[in-house]
Amino acid sequence: MNRSLKQPTVEVCVSPALIDTFDIREKIVVIIDILRASTSICVALDYGAACIAPAATVADCLRYRAEGYLCAAERDGKTVEGFEFGNSPYAFMAPELKGCKLALTTTNGTRALHASLEARRIVIGAFANISALAGWLRRQQTSVVLHCAGWKNKLNLEDTIFAGALLVELADDFAPGDDAAVLAKSLYEAADNEKRAYITASAHYKRLMELNLQKDVKYCLRRDSHNVIPVFEDGRLIDVLRQPEPASGSPE
Amino acid sequence: MNRSLKQPTVEVCVSPALIDTFDIREKIVVIIDILRASTSICVALDYGAACIAPAATVADCLRYRAEGYLCAAERDGKTVEGFEFGNSPYAFMAPELKGCKLALTTTNGTRALHASLEARRIVIGAFANISALAGWLRRQQTSVVLHCAGWKNKLNLEDTIFAGALLVELADDFAPGDDAAVLAKSLYEAADNEKRAYITASAHYKRLMELNLQKDVKYCLRRDSHNVIPVFEDGRLIDVLRQPEPASGSPE
Repeated sequence: MNRSLKQPTVEVCVSPALIDTFDIREKIVVIIDILRASTSICVALDYGAACIAPAATVADCLRYRAEGYLCAAERDGKTVEGFEFGNSPYAFMAPELKGCKLALTTTNGTRALHASLEARRIVIGAFANISALAGWLRRQQTSVVLHCAGWKNKLNLEDTIFAGALLVELADDFAPGDDAAVLAKSLYEAADNEKRAYITASAHYKRLMELNLQKDVKYCLRRDSHNVIPVFEDGRLIDVLRQPEPASGSPE
Repeated sequence: MNRSLKQPTVEVCVSPALIDTFDIREKIVVIIDILRASTSICVALDYGAACIAPAATVADCLRYRAEGYLCAAERDGKTVEGFEFGNSPYAFMAPELKGCKLALTTTNGTRALHASLEARRIVIGAFANISALAGWLRRQQTSVVLHCAGWKNKLNLEDTIFAGALLVELADDFAPGDDAAVLAKSLYEAADNEKRAYITASAHYKRLMELNLQKDVKYCLRRDSHNVIPVFEDGRLIDVLRQPEPASGSPE
């Protein structure tokens, strides 16, 4: 069979509450939580964290401390009391992370990941690693579901805009797989012309502004600041550009 | 309090699987199933049906027959065997409907309605009644949730585009209530410039084309062909422009 005749597809899941309507078993799921978990994960791995364990609950996250992990926990935009880190990308630009293991729980991003465990592979997507990620996805030649973490099961603008941006990057090699993919691409194209208007309309942007996190938001919208591919392997996110991938990952 | 200082809001629910993330108890829910249930309901009421009972299942629908109802049932785009009507708007342009009671079950639309029963009021929205509906919603001065029926819990383009069209109609009197409202408006504005491209990209459009229903689709996208407001009262949809509304419906 000529591969070019049957392109892999990209579908878009705009909320974790819809992930059950997708058959993800043979697909790669990209977890998208632009403000801020996806971005912070890219930063931490680029700053040398050996791995990141996504924890579903604050209590789960604390359990990793006994095993020597540094612990990061965020709820409703704020660092949970008693934790070394919250969810600010700037906090993870820390030399002491080098070689350390990190456990992380956030309001939405880690929940979306735990809802995607049936997928063939799981990878983290952010503006921070968009070009590296698009290249890696092209090499896998496998259909993809872009899983937007949203906000407490509601869709949000920034994750859907990023899904559209990634669709544009993949347009030559993947076909749009559902109506949500057409919608996300349309939204990205509209937002690209008036980025400020769209981001400031986002409910989560307003929430972060109230917490004085303007600098975080700006950083999370910057492209290609970290050349990392955070892939979920054996319960941990690792950067497969630095650590060897299993042989099955390559299609050639 | 000056009403103009606090506008009612419009939120958008892109799939019935997300309706639980909205607090609809004090709000009006607009059920949107453009291809084709919303449109067919407008047609049937405009052709004189006394009321329409939305049935959740084919078996529920059949039970109405014993009470003298005409019965309409659609699954996966096709008329269910043994039923007088399916879900084509043209089928409901029938003189014998005048004064009759109709029971209707469809793949998505009636399901979205049954998931919205907690709402203060439920009304049906389609391109067929968009201007009449916008006028009625403005008179209620109550916040609104636009509930897109989608396709088997996945979002679809045509329902989301219609939500955007209705948001534009309501823009002077309502504030966008969530990120999905901003998204739907953006999609509508993009689609308005290239309507054919967007509609033909819709998965459900392709499904209906395979069933030779081009004429139905064209009819469902026509604006203001029926001056009706199908409101859900005591388990039945009635046209409140022809039948008196309860006094509580008017805000003045």
